[in-house]
Amino acid sequence: MDKIRFGILGPGKISHRFMKGIAFAEDAEVVAVASRDLMKAEAFKSQYGLRYAYDDYVKMLENPEVDMVYIATIPSMHYEQIMLCLRYHKHVICEKPLLADSAAIKECFAYAGSQGLFLMEAQKAPFNYLNQEIKRRLEQGIIGQVKYIEAAYCYASFAQNYEHWVYRREDGGGMFDVGVYAIAYANMMAGSPLQKIQAMADRTPTGCDGFAVAMLEYENGVKAVVKGAIELNTENKALIYGTEGYIETVNFWKNTKATIYRGDTKEDIEIPMPTDFYPEIEAAVSGVKAQLLQSPIMNEEASLQIMKVLEYVRQV
Amino acid sequence: MDKIRFGILGPGKISHRFMKGIAFAEDAEVVAVASRDLMKAEAFKSQYGLRYAYDDYVKMLENPEVDMVYIATIPSMHYEQIMLCLRYHKHVICEKPLLADSAAIKECFAYAGSQGLFLMEAQKAPFNYLNQEIKRRLEQGIIGQVKYIEAAYCYASFAQNYEHWVYRREDGGGMFDVGVYAIAYANMMAGSPLQKIQAMADRTPTGCDGFAVAMLEYENGVKAVVKGAIELNTENKALIYGTEGYIETVNFWKNTKATIYRGDTKEDIEIPMPTDFYPEIEAAVSGVKAQLLQSPIMNEEASLQIMKVLEYVRQV
Repeated sequence: MDKIRFGILGPGKISHRFMKGIAFAEDAEVVAVASRDLMKAEAFKSQYGLRYAYDDYVKMLENPEVDMVYIATIPSMHYEQIMLCLRYHKHVICEKPLLADSAAIKECFAYAGSQGLFLMEAQKAPFNYLNQEIKRRLEQGIIGQVKYIEAAYCYASFAQNYEHWVYRREDGGGMFDVGVYAIAYANMMAGSPLQKIQAMADRTPTGCDGFAVAMLEYENGVKAVVKGAIELNTENKALIYGTEGYIETVNFWKNTKATIYRGDTKEDIEIPMPTDFYPEIEAAVSGVKAQLLQSPIMNEEASLQIMKVLEYVRQV
Repeated sequence: MDKIRFGILGPGKISHRFMKGIAFAEDAEVVAVASRDLMKAEAFKSQYGLRYAYDDYVKMLENPEVDMVYIATIPSMHYEQIMLCLRYHKHVICEKPLLADSAAIKECFAYAGSQGLFLMEAQKAPFNYLNQEIKRRLEQGIIGQVKYIEAAYCYASFAQNYEHWVYRREDGGGMFDVGVYAIAYANMMAGSPLQKIQAMADRTPTGCDGFAVAMLEYENGVKAVVKGAIELNTENKALIYGTEGYIETVNFWKNTKATIYRGDTKEDIEIPMPTDFYPEIEAAVSGVKAQLLQSPIMNEEASLQIMKVLEYVRQV
């Protein structure tokens, strides 16, 4: 297989950032885009010099030049679209949160596996080079034994357009929309399966969480507090506390800089990456090229561990 | 009644700070000190020019010149000593945490009330002038509707002298020793009874919490996360988030400065106080002079609301 040829499903804001990321990938290119709105698809196609634009998802999937699909539509469409892509024998990388519940995750991975296809949730934090480096240093004991992690991604839209999907009870709300980054980060840094989840949520009139906080306990004893909000501005940073110091990073899902505090010493580290979307694209592309069905990092189990928290928060 | 005449029970480090505070009180003075160690009591007496030093608590309590006792001993001694002081008809202000469980709090307040005596937990945060001013501004809606509060008091002694009282299962550990400040602060700022408590704790070999995190939900819908630790260093600050901004304070139990963030504006406020112990002493002294049996602010109910969290964390 030469270059992995991508089709994009949903040419929204996030797909422009995907294009910026894939520009650095030597083994991949985008050849097609599909949108329900042909004007949008055509505009995206001409902006990036793509070969094909479609107003019908199936037509794009029927194109044999498309090897893999990047799904960047709203969460409520993911299940149907992932299954559709798999039926047309395309590998899939799909925006977070991958799906709305554990059963759907298991079903989609099982089907992808049975078809010999690669499926991955598009989560930036686990592939971010800085985070990978921090994880290596944690394993070397740079802050002693890791005890406690905090991560928050919270914003206040105050738009309060309750018709918007972000206010949907089942696949909207603070924890689902952005807290998911904090969960992915905590799970990655804890490096152990979840053992116990507790949570509290402030509900909007539509029943989703305007903001939510979850306390996580991992099998290895590490603990974490993660926050997500669509109706509350907080500092969006992550802290990892160990017995001999702590590490602090702002915008932990895309950042290249962190500070390590030990005793009275303070070390700034910077691990550059080409752009925030590149590492996850690189991981997915290299997985497909290596004929893997799942990413060693962001695989079915990792998506299920994230979903456990989202499902818990939903029923609080 | 002229000046309230204090006897101090336990001339430790904290009692020196009490002396520094009471120096500003026009209506109170310290006349006596008692310690099991006469040398300590004598040294304290001569340092501050007191009239009496005792190596026997009862002897101090038999002195009719003592109107009120400040108890600054270790928590496991509080119950016995509060009851002893009350039996000798002395008003009492006792260091935090007041007692080890709700039943003891109820019993001591009931007995104090039946004897016409004033009893108060020595909690700095609720009387701190800055905190009082912040509370006033919150009530005026300075950050819109208050939604979420965070407060942490965590330190890492690493002494790990498991014989020390701070490692006692029943009345030691992070939440009991210092997290109690964070609880008192959150309860004060939420301004509503606790409705739900969830918590997680990292236990030391002695069974107390090396660090603990609690999620609190109040009847008025406000939510909070409080942390306490004796084995983990974190930033010791408090944040109050509202729909229109947030307020940040470091060392919130004794601080005189805070920052109010609203939109793109940032306002620093400073509310000086003579010294960190003065406001609570002033409150207790004015309460006694007004013949109150409890502080309007730090009363039985306030101590019980704090204890609810401590009791919950203990059994996690």
